[in-house]
Amino acid sequence: MSASDDSDPVIGVVVVTHGGAGQCLLHAAGTIVGPLEATEAVSAEMEDSFEEVIRHVEQACTDVDHGAGVVILVDIHGSSPFQACLAMLDGTRTVEIVCGVNLPMLLKLATVDRRDLRPYELAELLRDVGRRSIRLGSELTGKIALQESR
Amino acid sequence: MSASDDSDPVIGVVVVTHGGAGQCLLHAAGTIVGPLEATEAVSAEMEDSFEEVIRHVEQACTDVDHGAGVVILVDIHGSSPFQACLAMLDGTRTVEIVCGVNLPMLLKLATVDRRDLRPYELAELLRDVGRRSIRLGSELTGKIALQESR
Repeated sequence: MSASDDSDPVIGVVVVTHGGAGQCLLHAAGTIVGPLEATEAVSAEMEDSFEEVIRHVEQACTDVDHGAGVVILVDIHGSSPFQACLAMLDGTRTVEIVCGVNLPMLLKLATVDRRDLRPYELAELLRDVGRRSIRLGSELTGKIALQESR
Repeated sequence: MSASDDSDPVIGVVVVTHGGAGQCLLHAAGTIVGPLEATEAVSAEMEDSFEEVIRHVEQACTDVDHGAGVVILVDIHGSSPFQACLAMLDGTRTVEIVCGVNLPMLLKLATVDRRDLRPYELAELLRDVGRRSIRLGSELTGKIALQESR
């Protein structure tokens, strides 16, 4: 039994990427684990001004924040989309940022109770899931071979 | 001075994802660091049969392999696209697989000499770069604040 109440708001998640990778990642996650509530993607296009990117990220944060705050997953740090994400740390709402987004982070959203965590805790969890998911195929197939030989 | 010769073939890189994320990632990398030679993306769509995904991955490997082997970057392990990647380990060519692809791995391809490594070495390098890139914004901004205060 979860400590959270179904009427509690979930932490919102915004995926910010150079180009359309964020939409593709959310769509892929949706086809694998089903639609993920309170998630949105922002594409930063080459022709967008920095102010436009900030405005799009801000709008997405507003869309998905139902009172529990937001975790922003961004593709790389140090770029202008990342700087736009940093602009969300202005105190308007509780926001945490995770850099280096990959699909396993989004899949995790299907099984974690986003009512039961703070944005910082969800961000740490997604960071750890993302890092652990990055493995060599040979490490994994070695494991599979080991399991099959038992 | 590099130990490799400019006429040596580079290791090919294939990005395999559920849906179009791979194309988006390669396009994003291209706009940030310029076009990356000997790279190709494969979209595994819901309606594709397993045999079709294998055929597409195989074709992409053939396209980018100029004699130095291939590193396949796949979005998640355990899925049917990942299984299709495993089918490439049939001895036709030297192939290594890295799961959990993210943009920093692709950006690294712009600065690493792919003539000077074996596929296994490149895969380990990209795994490490990918893992290290996954950071909390608060860790990074703390660093920035520390650097600025010096």
